[in-house]
Amino acid sequence: MRARAAVFGLLLPVVITGQSARDQIRQWREAREPQIVQEFADFLKIPNVAADTQNLRRNATEIVAMLARRGVDARLLTNGAWPPVVYGELKAPGATRTIVLYAHYDGQPVDAKEWKGGAPFTPTLRDQRGSDWVDIPFPTTGRLNPESRIFARGAGDDKAPITAILTALDALKATGQRPTINLKFFFEGEEESNSAHLEGLLQRNANLLRADAWLFCDSPVHSSRQMQVVYGVRGAMGLELTVYGPTRAMHSGHYGNWVPNPGILVAELVTSLRNADGRILIKDFYDDVVPPTPAELKAVRALPNTDAAIRQDLLIGATEGNGALLAERIMLPGLNIRGLKVGQVEGLAANAIATEAKASIDFRLVPKQTPERIRALVEAHLNATGWFVTHAAATDAERLAHPKVVRVTWGGGDEASRVQQDEPVAVALAGTLDELLGKPVLRLPTMGGSLPTHLFERTLHVPLIVFPIANHDDNQHAKDENLRIQNLWDGIDAFAAIMTRMDTKWPRVVP
Amino acid sequence: MRARAAVFGLLLPVVITGQSARDQIRQWREAREPQIVQEFADFLKIPNVAADTQNLRRNATEIVAMLARRGVDARLLTNGAWPPVVYGELKAPGATRTIVLYAHYDGQPVDAKEWKGGAPFTPTLRDQRGSDWVDIPFPTTGRLNPESRIFARGAGDDKAPITAILTALDALKATGQRPTINLKFFFEGEEESNSAHLEGLLQRNANLLRADAWLFCDSPVHSSRQMQVVYGVRGAMGLELTVYGPTRAMHSGHYGNWVPNPGILVAELVTSLRNADGRILIKDFYDDVVPPTPAELKAVRALPNTDAAIRQDLLIGATEGNGALLAERIMLPGLNIRGLKVGQVEGLAANAIATEAKASIDFRLVPKQTPERIRALVEAHLNATGWFVTHAAATDAERLAHPKVVRVTWGGGDEASRVQQDEPVAVALAGTLDELLGKPVLRLPTMGGSLPTHLFERTLHVPLIVFPIANHDDNQHAKDENLRIQNLWDGIDAFAAIMTRMDTKWPRVVP
Repeated sequence: MRARAAVFGLLLPVVITGQSARDQIRQWREAREPQIVQEFADFLKIPNVAADTQNLRRNATEIVAMLARRGVDARLLTNGAWPPVVYGELKAPGATRTIVLYAHYDGQPVDAKEWKGGAPFTPTLRDQRGSDWVDIPFPTTGRLNPESRIFARGAGDDKAPITAILTALDALKATGQRPTINLKFFFEGEEESNSAHLEGLLQRNANLLRADAWLFCDSPVHSSRQMQVVYGVRGAMGLELTVYGPTRAMHSGHYGNWVPNPGILVAELVTSLRNADGRILIKDFYDDVVPPTPAELKAVRALPNTDAAIRQDLLIGATEGNGALLAERIMLPGLNIRGLKVGQVEGLAANAIATEAKASIDFRLVPKQTPERIRALVEAHLNATGWFVTHAAATDAERLAHPKVVRVTWGGGDEASRVQQDEPVAVALAGTLDELLGKPVLRLPTMGGSLPTHLFERTLHVPLIVFPIANHDDNQHAKDENLRIQNLWDGIDAFAAIMTRMDTKWPRVVP
Repeated sequence: MRARAAVFGLLLPVVITGQSARDQIRQWREAREPQIVQEFADFLKIPNVAADTQNLRRNATEIVAMLARRGVDARLLTNGAWPPVVYGELKAPGATRTIVLYAHYDGQPVDAKEWKGGAPFTPTLRDQRGSDWVDIPFPTTGRLNPESRIFARGAGDDKAPITAILTALDALKATGQRPTINLKFFFEGEEESNSAHLEGLLQRNANLLRADAWLFCDSPVHSSRQMQVVYGVRGAMGLELTVYGPTRAMHSGHYGNWVPNPGILVAELVTSLRNADGRILIKDFYDDVVPPTPAELKAVRALPNTDAAIRQDLLIGATEGNGALLAERIMLPGLNIRGLKVGQVEGLAANAIATEAKASIDFRLVPKQTPERIRALVEAHLNATGWFVTHAAATDAERLAHPKVVRVTWGGGDEASRVQQDEPVAVALAGTLDELLGKPVLRLPTMGGSLPTHLFERTLHVPLIVFPIANHDDNQHAKDENLRIQNLWDGIDAFAAIMTRMDTKWPRVVP
């Protein structure tokens, strides 16, 4: 921070000109891009996977320190053994509105050996050369290539908004501006574990967290690289299946086509759940699904259509849904096979019948679907297709008594949520961003991804709206997660505008 | 070897009694069990997986040394870059018959972390306690528990016969007996890679390898733990499939049910190949299959029926084939899913659509089926079910042009083989073992497993018969491979009988 203060001192003569507030913030940022990125990289160095509770806590205490350095009254809201929430407040004198800026500091699990460079927590700056991403040094002076990307777990999902918010505070201070809306900060550490232990904390802190609205700063911008506001999210729930085979791996010659093969059993199981076109085959699954309204369909069809470009980029020969738009498909529920694991393949494959087969699935839900109902439908489907279902390790007697035995383990579930586009916070946010961009920001009725927004809705009775800054091609949840540098710059601009202009766009309710 | 010679000297007064040759050999063995097992363990310490060519060669040179120490004229038959064959000869003065004893010193791939103890090449002696196998020290004196097992890759498949053959030679020498049949030894190092480069070596050495018959010393004894001779084997061939998904793992919320899921595609692919009951669904697959004859069915139905015990042991609720006998099922071709690999499961599972899905398959063939024909049928099936098939990495253009793209990699293939039970070598071997056991040895028309016997048949025009010594529950091809100590003792007795008595059982052809 001392280095930053020194640079800031040198820049003061530049920023106190008559330029617009927006241009001042940009100029300030352009003069110190290496320092901003360095602080981001230092933040990304702290591992943030769910299993690593010690480092999750380090993330939280570091964010408290970063907020405190910006003059924010910050502290941890502890939550028993679970990762703490970082909470902060910055009151704006005379402001009548309060928003909570939400982000999360935890990240998805990593399989380090799959990452380029093998080190998801060694942030690496890279430039694209042809189809490769080539390491480049972190610069210490000058400007960055806005198309460079910083690779690390959490770069896009979801440390980028935290860094953009903090830097926006720096920018406002340096350019002599002040927030005109009361700000609360809520950075949690359990989002990638479905915020499974957050509800009690929200209930205990309902007064502290009172606000007019929450902005969920998570997820990516539109695939056209344009900024978007998102009025809803799909729900999500996880499902792990273990299909039992013989107690020992058995020689496929001596025992093959007599000892049952768990690989074919799990393949039959998952193909009974959905087809290759994405249609879910579980009985009554679509009963609760409200089809998109004509207005919603009209809205998504007005979005830039980047489907062909995505197909080309991903080398996809045909998409699921018989040619339907991506934006339409994500308004439906989904069933994703996230993993299958049976025996070994290629060099490690042995001519043997494996002892078990595992399948990992995530569901995406739309409004009106509940995790409870999905669980009941799936288990009824399994029973109806001949499976003995157990929720614990199958006993010897169960394995001997039933031709097909599957252990079912449910992950935490979250319902979908959606607000109307005429909700005051939605009007205020979209108006703020319209002004910043000089054109209408993209408005998305729902995103395909999931956030624990429903948990906040039902606990705090507050409207929530999603405001993402990460690039759509950030490999979030996968190897080589990254953030495009320009998206960080755009995020800083946007948060500075939200802090200073959103209050002016808030609809005045006439009593 | 000096230690052994010293012990042998001490034992001489015991073995030169009037006991039958068979009893002398047993007594000799009972007096030196720890030393026999120690030599076996030292042999098992040398890693023997296909990828480790340096250690494969160490195995071969060590076997040459072990043969030479027994007075066998032994050497390596080199085979370019491929693992050498260990060849040896021991002529019996006056003998008119020559047999070749075949075994292999290479083993199946290992995934060390899956093994109990994590070290497949640290041979470990274990006793069963309840359902556990508990480490016990290698004894230095006294007798071993015949139900103890030695755990290591290669213990059952296929270093056990090599050790039993070598120890039988020691036993004959120590008890003043001599082989009455000319012996040739042929120990190869590429069996688990389908003996893929052996044909040229056999052709070049056809004269050297001339014999009346080959005994294939490989595979397990009957699951009733009774010794058996086996007149045929199933063929085998491997198949690796890679199904293409998006070029990057994609967030299952933002892109799910639009970006195609390779997990469901591979599941649909494998379920189109076979059903859970073991029936192969590939068009025309059974056209070449000659059904078992009534005589063959009668023979297998006369074998001890251990199906219920195996089911109980493996905790299998139902077997494939609608209740048919294991011994009948292995007379049919088989398609085994040896592995599926897509994304990750459980703790490592990310909510993402994987970039590819892999399936690993092995086929078992019966007489008249050829690998060429199977390859053609499978690829025609894939084409007919909408797959674009490539034999190299798919190009960008191919991936974009086709909805479903699969890379197909065929492993080496071997045809089935079978000899008649009245073939002279079959009569001689069965007669020798009948005499040793004091009751008829089990006679099996075919085994379920595969050996490269067809390669020898078509190259050397010689009858082959399979003579196994390993226990059926040796976990061969899987983790925790092991040999039951009693099976080693039985193997020593049997090879000593073969070397000294088989010539007397050989049918004399009247011209």
